[in-house]
Amino acid sequence: MLDFRFHMNSSILQHINSPEELRKLSLEQLPKLAQELREFIIAIVATKEGHLGASLGVVELTIALHYVFNTPIDNLIWDVGHQAYGHKILTGRKEIFETNRQLNGISGFPKRSESKYDTFGTGHSSTSISAILGMALAAKLDGASEKNHIAVIGDASIASGMAFEALNHAGATDANILIILNDNAIGIDPSVGALKKYLTNVKKGTAKDENIFECLNFDYTGPIDGHDIELVISTLEKLKTKKGPKLLHLITTKGKGLKQAEENQVIYHAPGKFNKETGDLLPKSKEFQPAKYQDVFGHTIVELARHNKKIIGITPAMPTGSSLKFMMQEFPERAFDVGIAEQHAVTLAAGMTTEGYMPFCTIYSTFLQRAYDQVIHDVAIQNLPVIFCLDRAGLVGQDGATHHGLYDIAYLRCIPNLILAVPMNELELRNMMYTAQLGLNHPIVIRYPRGRGVLKEWKVPFEKIEIGKAKKLKNGTKIVVLSIGHIGNMVTDVLHDIEPNEKIGHYNMRFIKPLDSTALKHIFDSYDHIITIEDGCKIGGFGSAIVEFANELSYHKPITVLGIDDKIIEHGTTKELHQITKIDALSFKLKINTILNATK
Amino acid sequence: MLDFRFHMNSSILQHINSPEELRKLSLEQLPKLAQELREFIIAIVATKEGHLGASLGVVELTIALHYVFNTPIDNLIWDVGHQAYGHKILTGRKEIFETNRQLNGISGFPKRSESKYDTFGTGHSSTSISAILGMALAAKLDGASEKNHIAVIGDASIASGMAFEALNHAGATDANILIILNDNAIGIDPSVGALKKYLTNVKKGTAKDENIFECLNFDYTGPIDGHDIELVISTLEKLKTKKGPKLLHLITTKGKGLKQAEENQVIYHAPGKFNKETGDLLPKSKEFQPAKYQDVFGHTIVELARHNKKIIGITPAMPTGSSLKFMMQEFPERAFDVGIAEQHAVTLAAGMTTEGYMPFCTIYSTFLQRAYDQVIHDVAIQNLPVIFCLDRAGLVGQDGATHHGLYDIAYLRCIPNLILAVPMNELELRNMMYTAQLGLNHPIVIRYPRGRGVLKEWKVPFEKIEIGKAKKLKNGTKIVVLSIGHIGNMVTDVLHDIEPNEKIGHYNMRFIKPLDSTALKHIFDSYDHIITIEDGCKIGGFGSAIVEFANELSYHKPITVLGIDDKIIEHGTTKELHQITKIDALSFKLKINTILNATK
Repeated sequence: MLDFRFHMNSSILQHINSPEELRKLSLEQLPKLAQELREFIIAIVATKEGHLGASLGVVELTIALHYVFNTPIDNLIWDVGHQAYGHKILTGRKEIFETNRQLNGISGFPKRSESKYDTFGTGHSSTSISAILGMALAAKLDGASEKNHIAVIGDASIASGMAFEALNHAGATDANILIILNDNAIGIDPSVGALKKYLTNVKKGTAKDENIFECLNFDYTGPIDGHDIELVISTLEKLKTKKGPKLLHLITTKGKGLKQAEENQVIYHAPGKFNKETGDLLPKSKEFQPAKYQDVFGHTIVELARHNKKIIGITPAMPTGSSLKFMMQEFPERAFDVGIAEQHAVTLAAGMTTEGYMPFCTIYSTFLQRAYDQVIHDVAIQNLPVIFCLDRAGLVGQDGATHHGLYDIAYLRCIPNLILAVPMNELELRNMMYTAQLGLNHPIVIRYPRGRGVLKEWKVPFEKIEIGKAKKLKNGTKIVVLSIGHIGNMVTDVLHDIEPNEKIGHYNMRFIKPLDSTALKHIFDSYDHIITIEDGCKIGGFGSAIVEFANELSYHKPITVLGIDDKIIEHGTTKELHQITKIDALSFKLKINTILNATK
Repeated sequence: MLDFRFHMNSSILQHINSPEELRKLSLEQLPKLAQELREFIIAIVATKEGHLGASLGVVELTIALHYVFNTPIDNLIWDVGHQAYGHKILTGRKEIFETNRQLNGISGFPKRSESKYDTFGTGHSSTSISAILGMALAAKLDGASEKNHIAVIGDASIASGMAFEALNHAGATDANILIILNDNAIGIDPSVGALKKYLTNVKKGTAKDENIFECLNFDYTGPIDGHDIELVISTLEKLKTKKGPKLLHLITTKGKGLKQAEENQVIYHAPGKFNKETGDLLPKSKEFQPAKYQDVFGHTIVELARHNKKIIGITPAMPTGSSLKFMMQEFPERAFDVGIAEQHAVTLAAGMTTEGYMPFCTIYSTFLQRAYDQVIHDVAIQNLPVIFCLDRAGLVGQDGATHHGLYDIAYLRCIPNLILAVPMNELELRNMMYTAQLGLNHPIVIRYPRGRGVLKEWKVPFEKIEIGKAKKLKNGTKIVVLSIGHIGNMVTDVLHDIEPNEKIGHYNMRFIKPLDSTALKHIFDSYDHIITIEDGCKIGGFGSAIVEFANELSYHKPITVLGIDDKIIEHGTTKELHQITKIDALSFKLKINTILNATK
């Protein structure tokens, strides 16, 4: 039944514009609806791109939940939200689903402002149990004990600490919540850890009597086949009448219904464009493209690890996204995927440094927010030389508001003992990594964006970079641009194009902390107007550091701070978002010309 | 044996200056050593103050660990570290133990710079399993498989998410670690949650066959009586020879050996001065003292909750410390202690707001670092009106480096949608709480310090405070002081004493975000020199906000930013630390006079 062949005769789906309409269908119609919903998701994602595998895996569950429960009166939260495409399509967003993840289109994640069926916005993992418990306890205070509260969470996400905290609280209440554990044994990469092994034993029937969730006082049901829609519906019907905290363990297959997606679950998590008939990925452009910063990180750490036996790699659940996978292949005993456990990842790294090891802890900027205390308390206060590779810093594009890495400069700059380095290109990333593993006696954060660098050649011999030393890229007389990171390449290009450009200098500052005070004194003594630019929030960011410096040394010259204003930035391509936030080439050129005219 | 009578004949303890010497004792001598160690701890803490109950509870365990294991070659970590007094005394710090928590004295927590026996600094809970696993994995890479790695963690701390993340990772490795679960059913306040209930069942023998730790692939032993020193030693000896991840479940009594401390575990967690013979607390001064900000919070939320049925109180494990206990007594169904689970606390609150409730989430500044992502991702991005009462912001005194709340202004100021309010006294705290529950359509953080306010009367009728509105306290002509929070009272006092003082104005800014731009424009237009002062880090802090404002509006006047410099501040009284960091009255007066002389 589910091994279907892409007939687009969506005769049922086309009439479903809300869960109310869904609930009028007969049970017998639902398998066909499931088939149509799969086809619809595949057809759109094939051409518009997006997250595929997770939503395909929960098609039956999605239908069953809206069929059995009285959404949106009953609250439903999708943890992370990668799997919520079917939910969006069935709750009134079918016609606009093709705008998914596009500028001004619908979000790739559930979002409260988008639909009353999106009761809680998600994006980062493991938040759903806390949020649904909050709603359930509120309903109890309202005396609305008939309301149901459901959170759907994957086996990778439930292993994160925050989810455990919520289970621990929920299990000690009589809140009317149903946690659906969507167990497909994979997050973005395959799940890891003791709980995953345990769940595997439960599935095989080799686990002992008492269930780990029962230990936490949950009423446990399962495991059941999450693709058997009748079974899922009858099970949900039964659970609907039970009070108190319940957990349903559902076994699903990520990518279900598309052969390639089932067989290559990591690639088909978010496969890019593909042929919706065959499932084959569309061939990539053969044109030269610079390397991704992620691959520069991934190959460089392997190269360094070959010579430095003390190097360790750590990723919280992003071996593919961060490219630590290369090290995991070559040095499996020295490269650790610890699962969705940023807090643990950081303090694990701190522990390793005390024994003389050099952990490179690679974490996305937006996810380091989850280990902020560990960076302060376990790393910086003790001044332990953990090397953080801060991936996807700045605007990340289509993942949108929950995933932009905009705050890291502000939240890291205030921490004592920390070095904050920002490479402008592949070579600088590589050389900063090289420099860090020579030994710094301080923790260091090396910050780089999602996406590609600018160079043709970057696998050249390593060179040590002096900590806290800026690099002058261009002389000038009146105006100077201080850039930090990759965005400096745009600055270079724009300055190259401006005629005449002798008045404008440019420094790649390289380090936000420590600042190059020698260079800065020279700069403030030599130029009339200082412009700073960064791919990060303006409040407390790099520009703010320069303004603080100027104030402290009593330089009273105009400083124009370019960066992201104090508001939530939604999704769109990185290019579009740079335009909106005015850190794109055209906006920058206009700004430079305005200042140039004013300084004549 | 343990019901001893304070004979200070420390004939064994006085000869023990290291674990090597301890290991030369016979088994038969250890109970007497335990008695002497208890007496020693009680005698010192009775007069010098500090954390009492936790260390009394692990006297036998402390002796047993150093007796059985080859510390410091074998790594030992004390989670949180409140319980490490015995450890400090046995590892060479007996003579200086009376300097505990004092300026330039030893730290109240384990600290790497203090002793080679303190393998990892602690302070915040639940970090020990991650750190010890890092060390164990490092030892494995070193081929040092004979080394043992032990973490001692309480039942309240092991329920925090980070500890679960570490258990989940450790259970999937063959790392040679021993986790000792010190189960006394209490943290600072009694433990909560499903895991606590489960552990109670285990102790009663009513839990089913499989153990929750066995589910996570740990070799489980216990529960055993943690005060039976011979049993603890023989059990540790057995576990020492076992490889892989192990957990020993130890039952102890917090405050063991001091009747009052056993019976009043919350009070005797850190009892202040007491009579070492009787255990009775010393009578408090009858002199009038202003209320603690914590009690102003605690009584005010009760008062507001009586009239506003939508108000909810949430604390992560600090009902006593935060004074939420008053609401827990009067409105038990609307006040939640969720355990050491800051991440969960914040997102639980976010979930409640979606149902129209008004959660006051009270968290210490240093602990909100643990829920930073939840503040951004679950609260601010969705603009949900959670009311954060940010307790113990600024320098906290004797708890030292790990507990100061210095970074919050910097890490919160960069988050969109957030209101950041800082009351100068009890009345402003009270009125800001009142204003928040009138409904703001934004999340708000209300920041206040540890300790007492300044007023005699604060239980007066509520008044609404205009959001983003500063308050002028004193007119001036040349110099203006912009203060934020409680430190403004010191500013008022100093300005009152300075003669002549007509030149100096003073504003209580009240809000860091949004800033009062109208007042600031007037200030920058009217004064020659601006001084900012805050009890927080200078980088990215309140002063930085003022400097950013001035730069953006092209005001080029000198701004002197007073606050905490970019370094780790250790322990001492708050008064001493204010002096060291130069935000005390004398330093401020000198600074004002210097500026006054320069502006003549």
